[in-house]
This record gives sequence, C-alpha cells and structure tokens, in this order.
Amino acid sequence: MSKNNKASNRKQDALDYHSSGRPGKIEVVPTKPTQSQRDLSLAYSPGVAEPCLRIAENPESIYKYTAKGNLVAVISNGTAVLGLGDIGAAAGKPVMEGKGLLFKIFADIDVFDLELDTKNVDQFVQIVKALEPTFGGINLEDIAAPQCFEIERRLKEEMKIPVMHDDQHGTAIISGAALMNAVEIQHKTLDTIKVVVNGAGAAAVSCSKLYLAIGVKKENLIMFDKDGLLHHGRTDLDDIRREFFTDRTDVKVLADAMKGADVFVGLSAGNVVTPEMLLAMAPNPIVFAMANPEPEISYDLATQTRDDLIMATGRSDYP
Amino acid sequence: MSKNNKASNRKQDALDYHSSGRPGKIEVVPTKPTQSQRDLSLAYSPGVAEPCLRIAENPESIYKYTAKGNLVAVISNGTAVLGLGDIGAAAGKPVMEGKGLLFKIFADIDVFDLELDTKNVDQFVQIVKALEPTFGGINLEDIAAPQCFEIERRLKEEMKIPVMHDDQHGTAIISGAALMNAVEIQHKTLDTIKVVVNGAGAAAVSCSKLYLAIGVKKENLIMFDKDGLLHHGRTDLDDIRREFFTDRTDVKVLADAMKGADVFVGLSAGNVVTPEMLLAMAPNPIVFAMANPEPEISYDLATQTRDDLIMATGRSDYP
Repeated sequence: MSKNNKASNRKQDALDYHSSGRPGKIEVVPTKPTQSQRDLSLAYSPGVAEPCLRIAENPESIYKYTAKGNLVAVISNGTAVLGLGDIGAAAGKPVMEGKGLLFKIFADIDVFDLELDTKNVDQFVQIVKALEPTFGGINLEDIAAPQCFEIERRLKEEMKIPVMHDDQHGTAIISGAALMNAVEIQHKTLDTIKVVVNGAGAAAVSCSKLYLAIGVKKENLIMFDKDGLLHHGRTDLDDIRREFFTDRTDVKVLADAMKGADVFVGLSAGNVVTPEMLLAMAPNPIVFAMANPEPEISYDLATQTRDDLIMATGRSDYP
Repeated sequence: MSKNNKASNRKQDALDYHSSGRPGKIEVVPTKPTQSQRDLSLAYSPGVAEPCLRIAENPESIYKYTAKGNLVAVISNGTAVLGLGDIGAAAGKPVMEGKGLLFKIFADIDVFDLELDTKNVDQFVQIVKALEPTFGGINLEDIAAPQCFEIERRLKEEMKIPVMHDDQHGTAIISGAALMNAVEIQHKTLDTIKVVVNGAGAAAVSCSKLYLAIGVKKENLIMFDKDGLLHHGRTDLDDIRREFFTDRTDVKVLADAMKGADVFVGLSAGNVVTPEMLLAMAPNPIVFAMANPEPEISYDLATQTRDDLIMATGRSDYP
C-alpha cells in the first residue's frame, strides 16, 4: 500500500507540475531591450531590415544577427516515446519540452520542440530539411527503429547543419562513458567483460556499436529484442540488427544470458530483470537499467539483492 | 549629409542591437522550477510519462500539460519580407524573431519562428499540417501572393487549430480600425471617401476587402500594382485581383488617382508618393504609408507638405 501510495503521489505531483500556473514547461522571451519606441524600431520595422539585407548578402551572417546558432530543434513523431512506445506526436510533447529544458539548464542551448504528425520517412525528411534556415542543429528524438536510421542517415547527408539522434548518440555516449568508469571501479577490463543488452532499438544498437568500438569483444555481447535472442535462426531482422547475432548455442532466454554476465544493459521495458537473474550474474556486476519511466529492475530491489553491483538508471530521481 | 549620417547610424544601431551579446532576439526558458533532482524527475523521467499517458488517453489534455495552447508558429518562406521582397527564408529570420517578440511583449503569447526553405505550395501546406500537434495556432507571415491565398485557404480547411495570415488579417484589421477613426476625425464618411490603394499583394487585397466590408464603395476604390492601374485591359491578373478593376477611364497613373482622393493606402514600396501628389489630394486627407522599412512618403516630408492630413506608417519610430 505504501509503495502504491508513493507512486500515486508521484504521478499526481508530475501532473500538478505540468499543469499548475502556465501550462507546460517553457516560454520564449526577448533577450534584448523592448521597452521603448526606439527599441522596437530596432527590433522590428525599420531596424530589422538591415540585418535581413546583410543575411541576404552573406548567408553566414545569420549566425551573427539571429538566434539560429544557439537554436536546436528537438524533433519527434512520437513513435517511440520513452518506454511508452508509439503514443503519437501530441502525446510526446511533454517529453520534447522536457528535453528542451534539459538542453537549456545544462548547456544554455535554446530549443524549439517540434512534434510532427507523420510516420512517413520521406515526408519526415522533407520537413526537417525545409527547416534548415531556422536552426543551428537538429536533435531527433524518440523515433522508432528502423525508420530512425534512414531518417538520420539521409538528413546527415543532405543537410549542412549537425544532425544527431539523441536516443542513439546521446545514450551511447553517456552509457559508454559510464561503462568505462564502472569497469574500472569493478576491476574488470573491457576486452573480457560479458555484456547482455536487452532491447534492439535505436539506443541499444548505437550503445552496442560504441561498446564494441571501445573494446568489448563481439563474441562477448548478446542482444535480445521483444521476440527474444538475436541469433542466426532469426529471419525477421534487418542488417543493422543481424550484426548482433550471437554464435552461442547455450543461450535461449534472458535468464540464460545473465548467468555469469558482467554487464546488463537495459534499453527495453520495465521490470523484466528478476532478483534471481541478478544473483546469477558474475561477481561485481554492472547494471544499466535505462528503460523509462520504469527501469528493468528498480534501484531499490537491485541494491537490496546484491551489494557488489554498480547500477545506473535513466531517471533523475535515482542514481 | 546630416540625414544620411542619421540613417547610417540607425542602420548601425540596428545591426548592433541584433548582434550584441547573445545573437538574435529570443531565448527559450523554463517556466517551472528545475533546480533540484526532484524537479527534474517531475519535468523529465520518470514524471513526464504521466502527462504523456494522459494526453494519449485524452488528446485535449495537451492544452493542460504542455505549452501548446499559448504557442504560435510564425511561419514564413521569406518570399515577401517587409518591402524587401523575396530575400529567402534565412534572410527573413530577423523579421520572424521580431514578430515573435511583438507577440510576447504585447500579448504574452510564445512564438517559435520557423523559416521554411520551400516555395512549393503543396510542400509548404504539408509541412505546416504536420506541425499541428506542436502549436495552438499558426501565423503565416511574409509569403508572396498569390501563393499565400492558396496556402491559407488549404490550411484553414485542413487544420483544426486557428490559421491566420498576418499580412492579410493583421494589417487589414489595424488599418481598418485606423481608417474608421481617421474618417471620423477628418469629418468624412466611409461611403463617400475616395480611396487609392498602392500595392496589390496579400495585405493590399485583404485591407481593401475589409474597407469594402465596412462601407467604402467599390467604385471609390482604385488599386495599383507594380505594373500600374488595375483596369479591365489587364490580362495578367488572377481572379482575386480582377475584383479590384476600376471602371474609371480618367486615371492612368498614380498621380491621376491621387487628384481629389481622400485616402491613400500604401502597401508597396518606399518613396513613391511625391509632395505634388499629396498636395493634389482632397482637403483633410488620410495617408497610411505602410511600406516597410521605407514608407511611401516619409512622415517628416508629408507633414511638412500639408498640415491638414492624418498619417500613419508601419514603423515603430513614427506614428
């Protein structure tokens, strides 16, 4: 009861946070004085004409006279929002506003969050390309695999501003850095650790690629998706995921893979790791349970089960 | 020399205003507390999931949990920026940021300015439609006629949020209200005044339609575009503009039309009205010289030429 009450209170707190006062989490404010008639005549007509003409003459000067250089689009179509799945563009808006807020408070980067009502790859690409004059960079967010790979590849090829897919690169970079640190603390080495990755979406693929790049051996990495182990018998997977097929024949389900594993990386759904699985892992294990909003195993349960582990989640309220 | 110096200083002031400190005129800031770990766990993971799920269940609750309801897109493709013409999407960005700033300081409405690199009507419509989940309203800005009419018509038909074309409706409403006031002050009546409209773009067409709706007689309104008088001999015009063909045969050029006119409405290019034209107007004339950044006749020159006129411009530094 107490745990349920706590969760219920937390949900209500989150709803209150988002709806109290001004709905949502962001506003757009002037950075320059706008009090006097003179200010307005500089900010708008007639003053505004001069920077317009300078930009028309020299396109690079847009970075001097507008907010473009510090302005990033966080763009999603809502097809893979957190661990909630395809909840639609509109329902993803609280997440995209929240991501904008993280950009602002941690990097002082301004974000327009854009929620696009399209699942068509060509249309998505066309829209983002047309937005190039507006932004200094594009941060794709919570777009389902495999569409996200093609969208990102085409935008990188065809746009002149930086494009990144947060679920891939953002997650890969922080979890790669965390893995390097955790391995050192646990007195292990990257080239010997056995890694289990649960999830085969954009984030899981990118993280795994980075782990291999920093020294994890391919034969020591095993990946699961919602249909189970990625192995040579699977015919339902694209080339990107086929790269992570395992040669091991002793593993059928997640519990098999966890036996003796050094690292568990969860980028899938909440509460799929049991205390038994955790106990079967090697000494001094590393657990990154990054499913959102519910981790693959809760921080409390995991730390109660073993005291020799290092754990991280994707939440702000747990380590 | 002194006048040139003054203009030159003003241009430099405008460039300094736009480039000093943080480039541009806007930033996006949080409206909710983001200091503590608890704040972040409400604003992002795990708290954010709850408003997402509520919106997925009940689409209307997006207005309760996000900034959508107070968020307007100011969208342009830069094809008709102020009186500067088709300077391109990027070069129009200072104007669109400036418009966002006016929305904010006068109405506390938040604006994302979006500059779209496309002149294709279908593509423009498709992009704006896909943005529907993001915004509470759409404000089209500085899009060339006649494309702007089709874009606006289709978006109004196909979107569920309000769509307005600022150059049409914004200008029409303020100039219509100003005309009603000015006519009263000058002791004239709407159904007898002779009106000359210089310009036949989106703003000119919309203003003229509104003037007719509030009582100006069609036979008393004469319109010019860059190629001259709109009359029955013209074969180069669409239906929207053909409505403003004049039956008068005594008028060939703007100077003819100004003889005895009560009202001049300029929505075209700077400095096309001479003191002679102004002197030929009826007693107590009304002059709306709204070309940007340079009015059709400067406020100083017009008021020096006649002291019985009422004048307005589209600039912040003149009445």
